[in-house]
Amino acid sequence: MKTRIFSAFVNNNSGVLTRISGLFARRGYNIKSLTVGETPDPRVSRMTIECLGDDRTFEQIESQLRKVEDVISVAMLDPERTVWRELFLIGVRGASAPSENVCGLDYRIVSQSDSGAVYELCGTGDDLKRFCALFGGAEFDIARTGITAVEK
Amino acid sequence: MKTRIFSAFVNNNSGVLTRISGLFARRGYNIKSLTVGETPDPRVSRMTIECLGDDRTFEQIESQLRKVEDVISVAMLDPERTVWRELFLIGVRGASAPSENVCGLDYRIVSQSDSGAVYELCGTGDDLKRFCALFGGAEFDIARTGITAVEK
Repeated sequence: MKTRIFSAFVNNNSGVLTRISGLFARRGYNIKSLTVGETPDPRVSRMTIECLGDDRTFEQIESQLRKVEDVISVAMLDPERTVWRELFLIGVRGASAPSENVCGLDYRIVSQSDSGAVYELCGTGDDLKRFCALFGGAEFDIARTGITAVEK
Repeated sequence: MKTRIFSAFVNNNSGVLTRISGLFARRGYNIKSLTVGETPDPRVSRMTIECLGDDRTFEQIESQLRKVEDVISVAMLDPERTVWRELFLIGVRGASAPSENVCGLDYRIVSQSDSGAVYELCGTGDDLKRFCALFGGAEFDIARTGITAVEK
């Protein structure tokens, strides 16, 4: 299975998320992550959906999304021409890592106490695995945003 | 109106997002951002929902969310004990900013071409405004993940 990212502009209407998630549930499309964020126009939100599937499924998803009420536009992003990133917040108890970027990882400490620290990491799922491997036997509390993406 | 962040662990079932977004739509609760990401357990996803409202509404949201099928746990995060962040990817055409962090902003260039650049910025909506103000009269393409959060 491959991964594709869809970027959709939608009317900022509470029903549109229900319609889109209902479409994915009914058809059994596989969502890996989904983010909905504001745009400069308060009437419009931008939705980024990371999907697993094959080329035929991706074409169907694109075409089905376009038909959903309150969807303004849909783009299936070309992986070659797209920058995508995810933000991870990682609470760690009982261990610490070097305080600044090592191994080419883009992370930093955002909060620290006696019991542990919270790190902010930007990157991919693989970067998260590499980051966690820096700590031996620690306990993690990981919150991740899901992917967002823009074309280069 | 105030902002509160809810963090929910849910069964990774395609119907749960539909049920939750349907609840918000039916009751007219105001979602500012929503993110769904994986957890170390592939059967479980973590959902972070940023809501606008008053204390009474927040109590209702928490209690309603707990009743939704496939919701494992819900926490209304205490702003004092929580770290929250959002990731922005910002495509800029026709202008450039200092290549590394200025004004205490946590950003960097992730892609650059003749026509423009893509920046990665971690922070809050206010940080985004301050970042955009660094560019005079540029054209922006902004993708934002919505908030994710962990307790300190």
